[in-house]
Amino acid sequence: MTKAPSDPTRLRRLHEKAAYDRATIDAILDAMPVAYVGYVMNGAPVVIPTLQWRDGDRIYWHGSAASRSLKAGKGCPVCVTVTLTDAMVLARSAFEHSVNSRSVMVFGQAEWVTDPAAKAAHLEAMVERLFPGRWPMLRPMTAQEVKATGLLSLPLTEASAKISAAEPGGTDPEADKGWPVWAGLLPVSLTMGAPVPAPDLPPGVALPAHAARYRLGEKPQ
Amino acid sequence: MTKAPSDPTRLRRLHEKAAYDRATIDAILDAMPVAYVGYVMNGAPVVIPTLQWRDGDRIYWHGSAASRSLKAGKGCPVCVTVTLTDAMVLARSAFEHSVNSRSVMVFGQAEWVTDPAAKAAHLEAMVERLFPGRWPMLRPMTAQEVKATGLLSLPLTEASAKISAAEPGGTDPEADKGWPVWAGLLPVSLTMGAPVPAPDLPPGVALPAHAARYRLGEKPQ
Repeated sequence: MTKAPSDPTRLRRLHEKAAYDRATIDAILDAMPVAYVGYVMNGAPVVIPTLQWRDGDRIYWHGSAASRSLKAGKGCPVCVTVTLTDAMVLARSAFEHSVNSRSVMVFGQAEWVTDPAAKAAHLEAMVERLFPGRWPMLRPMTAQEVKATGLLSLPLTEASAKISAAEPGGTDPEADKGWPVWAGLLPVSLTMGAPVPAPDLPPGVALPAHAARYRLGEKPQ
Repeated sequence: MTKAPSDPTRLRRLHEKAAYDRATIDAILDAMPVAYVGYVMNGAPVVIPTLQWRDGDRIYWHGSAASRSLKAGKGCPVCVTVTLTDAMVLARSAFEHSVNSRSVMVFGQAEWVTDPAAKAAHLEAMVERLFPGRWPMLRPMTAQEVKATGLLSLPLTEASAKISAAEPGGTDPEADKGWPVWAGLLPVSLTMGAPVPAPDLPPGVALPAHAARYRLGEKPQ
C-alpha cells in the first residue's frame, strides 16, 4: 500500500450536496414511490420496503392493518428513505469509487390515520398519484378493505435530500489521473417493459394512458 | 363503498412467498448491491442507503470510519434490506394493486472489522464482487484510505427472502374479473446506459469487460 496523496475523507465529499429545500425533496419523493421505512421493534431496527406518496406537506404509506411493523410505527419515531440510483462511479482507486444517486430521508413521529373516510380519501390520492385517472375506473373500495388497511403519515418538517452527482472521473484526485485504468460512469436507469395484460380482460378494455405512460423513477404525468 | 367479496387480507397473500433457503437469499443479495441499512440512534431508526456485498456466509458494507450511523451499528442490532422491483401490479380494485418484487432482510448484531489487513482484503473482495478483475488494475489502496474506511459485517444466520410474483390480473378475486378496467403488469427493470469515460483517460485505456458487462440488478459475471 502506497501513501495517500491527500486527505481522502475530504475528497470524497466534493460531488455530494445536501439539500433542505422542499422543491428538491419533493421532486425525489414524487419520482420514486419505492421507500424503505425504518421502525424500531423491541429495540432493534426493521427496514420494510413499501410505497410512499406525498400529499402536500406529508408523506403517507400503507399496509395491512394487522402488520406488526406498521403498528410499530404508530406514534413512534420512524425514518423513511427514498433513493434513485443514477450511475456507478468507477475511479482510478478503489477508495474513490462511488454511486451517483438522489436520496431523501424523512424523520419524525409516524401518525396512524384511523378515520375511515380520511383513510379512503388518502388511498384514492395514492392511486391517483401513481396512476392519474385510474381511481374512477376501479371496482369501488369496500368498507372491509378500508378497515383492513393501515395508514401511516409523516410530516416533511424533518426531511433532507442528498444528491451525489460526480462527473466521469470526477472523484479522482489529480495525482491519480494518469493511472492507466478506465474511469467513468456506468449510468443506470429504470426502464419499463411492455405492459402485460391479464388474460381474462373483458372485450374492449384498452390500455389506459396512466399505464402506457407509467415510468417508475419519474414523476407520473 | 360496496361490500367486500371475501376476506381481503387472505387474498393478498396468494402471490407472496417467504423463503429461508440460502440459494434464494444469496441470489437476491448477489444481484443487488444497493441495500438499506437500519440502525437505531438515540432510540430512533435511521435508514441509510449503501452498497452491500456477500462473502460466503456474511454480508459486508462500508462507509467513512467517522460516519455516525456506521459507528451506531458497531455491535448493535441492525437490519439490512435489499429489494429488486420487478413490476407494478395493476388490479381491478385499488386494494389488490401490488408490486412484484424480490426482497431479502438480514437481522443481527453488526460486527466492526478493525484489523487493517482484514479490512483491505474485504475491500478488495467488494471491488471484485462488483467488477471482477478490476482490483489489480487500480491505483493501490493506501494505509490512510484503509484507516478512513469503516467496515461492518453481519452473518446470514437470521435472513429471509420474500418473493412477490403475481401473474397479470392474478391478485383479483374471481368476482372482480368482469370489471371493465385494464389489469396486468407494468414490468420494471434496471437498464445500463452507455458508459461515459472520464475526459482525461491516458491514451490507449480501453473499457474493461467488467465495466462493459456490468448490470445493476444482476449478478456480475
